Amino acid sequence: MAGLLGQLGLEVPIIQAPMAGTSTPAMAASVSNTGALGSIAVGAVDAAAARTMIAAVRARTSRPFNVNVFCHSPARADSERERDWLRFLGPQFERYGGAPPRELREIYTSFVADEAMQALLLESRPGAVSCHFGLPSAHTIARMKAAGIVVLATATSLDEARQAQAAGADAVVAQGYEAGGHRGVFDPVAHDTQLSTLALTRILVSGIALPVIAAGGIMDGAGIAAALRLGATAVQLGTAFIACPESGADQYHRAALFGPGAAMTEMTRVISGRPARCLPNRFTALQRLAAGPLIVPDYPIAYDAGKALAAAARAAGEGGFGAHWAGQGAPLARALPAAELVRILCAEMSGAFAEG
Amino acid sequence: MAGLLGQLGLEVPIIQAPMAGTSTPAMAASVSNTGALGSIAVGAVDAAAARTMIAAVRARTSRPFNVNVFCHSPARADSERERDWLRFLGPQFERYGGAPPRELREIYTSFVADEAMQALLLESRPGAVSCHFGLPSAHTIARMKAAGIVVLATATSLDEARQAQAAGADAVVAQGYEAGGHRGVFDPVAHDTQLSTLALTRILVSGIALPVIAAGGIMDGAGIAAALRLGATAVQLGTAFIACPESGADQYHRAALFGPGAAMTEMTRVISGRPARCLPNRFTALQRLAAGPLIVPDYPIAYDAGKALAAAARAAGEGGFGAHWAGQGAPLARALPAAELVRILCAEMSGAFAEG
Repeated sequence: MAGLLGQLGLEVPIIQAPMAGTSTPAMAASVSNTGALGSIAVGAVDAAAARTMIAAVRARTSRPFNVNVFCHSPARADSERERDWLRFLGPQFERYGGAPPRELREIYTSFVADEAMQALLLESRPGAVSCHFGLPSAHTIARMKAAGIVVLATATSLDEARQAQAAGADAVVAQGYEAGGHRGVFDPVAHDTQLSTLALTRILVSGIALPVIAAGGIMDGAGIAAALRLGATAVQLGTAFIACPESGADQYHRAALFGPGAAMTEMTRVISGRPARCLPNRFTALQRLAAGPLIVPDYPIAYDAGKALAAAARAAGEGGFGAHWAGQGAPLARALPAAELVRILCAEMSGAFAEG
Repeated sequence: MAGLLGQLGLEVPIIQAPMAGTSTPAMAASVSNTGALGSIAVGAVDAAAARTMIAAVRARTSRPFNVNVFCHSPARADSERERDWLRFLGPQFERYGGAPPRELREIYTSFVADEAMQALLLESRPGAVSCHFGLPSAHTIARMKAAGIVVLATATSLDEARQAQAAGADAVVAQGYEAGGHRGVFDPVAHDTQLSTLALTRILVSGIALPVIAAGGIMDGAGIAAALRLGATAVQLGTAFIACPESGADQYHRAALFGPGAAMTEMTRVISGRPARCLPNRFTALQRLAAGPLIVPDYPIAYDAGKALAAAARAAGEGGFGAHWAGQGAPLARALPAAELVRILCAEMSGAFAEG
């Protein structure tokens, strides 16, 4: 195939979305072996762990795969805000017999500041690197491209897409508001235009010269066919893969995905400090307990508290504080092995196109 | 054509959305004359004015058209809330030399309580009646269907769509969160799941037996082709028609549509009392002036204040308090005569399908 798909070595225009904590090397390899693009996410691990993950993918496939990095502005610590946040969460820790952390740390390093991770990717040369929450420098992007890596960048608006284009990205992932997990907005404090996949894809296809990958709300072959009609070159699906056996999603996440909350995902920043779309659970419900607007610490400082609370609750048998990310398409989720899911998606897509 | 399109007498699967104050009999007739379905909205007028509007459409076309009605629960007056609201808006009236109304009225009657309007529609028998904000009784729907009227109902969730199906509607308009103007939610106080057109259309196509009409964010033939791929039987476009010469949009609305705010539409209830997607203007900015959450009077009581403020500001040369409704596709708007727009949409749609 020509263009982006050829660059990525893809036989089908489907990307399995990177999902830190949920996608796995086994999932990525299974997907890549079908001719689609599997992804791992290394935003929540250091370079040493990323090296192990990349090796684990390579042990299972010789095909290209994608490595996703988080490119947020490094967090600003604010001890007062963090203390207030721990005080707000305190009763929840108490309820489950856990102690809140004494202080909160910036548990992940942004790729923009992580030289070891940059060096690892330049050395290991995955087929693609996708960037979330912002962009590496144009220099870093140029070095990755020179190493033969296809660089993808998430955008939630025309402005972000133009920045990605100016920085040298090869393609833009148009992340609609319906997408599950962390919203890729470059500035989590700025007004969010909340553009849907449909609107954003058309706006980006009309407004930039790069290929556009549609992401958000796409769960089946009809959704893929629709996104390609919008002018997308490929699609990225995450929620569709949560229930695969290769997924790292725990029993609570899987149960929530197939529960009544699937139709009611919500955007929340209480879990990690950045807006992310989540299945409704005890953690997202905390937003409604607050008297006023919640002042959440910066990502990923807040996530340190969130993970501690989830662990404390889980130890007491309560799974409802997990990061149960999912997109608005959650009611259409299927529990299938990743490779079988891709084959079904392709068959459905062909069927949708054959209908004329 | 068979099915819904045949029932509606359509040659193309396109519905021009009813837009109270913006769509006009001339627009509806122009659209219907192309073989698509034109719509007028009578939610903001009484039966006598609706009769005149229906006659004005019929003077220009003999083809079927759609009449849209508002089926909200009648407003609950609350003098304290209304007084507080007028006090909040007071400085704005003062700024433009206008006096706020002394009291606020329920300026529109819901179709569910408007026997004269029900009688008019049964007598005048438009090709279709579409219902927004809720449903008429199953009895009223049955009477309209017995009179040969195709009954369409807006739904923003699977639950609302099931209610529409149970009440006897012929088809459901799946209104995504990206759609412009008033959000069709049955209960404006309940938690809004904000489902996008893409996610909602797939969920409704999978979940109900009725034909689904996709609405929200669709601006061109590629968008139409995509929505049909999702399994929609037809599409409804509103924002695409705002800039038509037949539109009732004023100069300020048109200017805003082609201004930088087009990419930043926002959902607001400050103008009318119900959430509606609007181009950012002085009125939507009021949300950010408030110290706490705004307690807005019920729809359409709040709209009485909103219209008075818009008029006072306009009299002083400030057009920024209008109900400048638009959907997230606003950056793709085109200023074309309605019939020409439909012809272009059809050509684009055929082109999108021909691409395979």
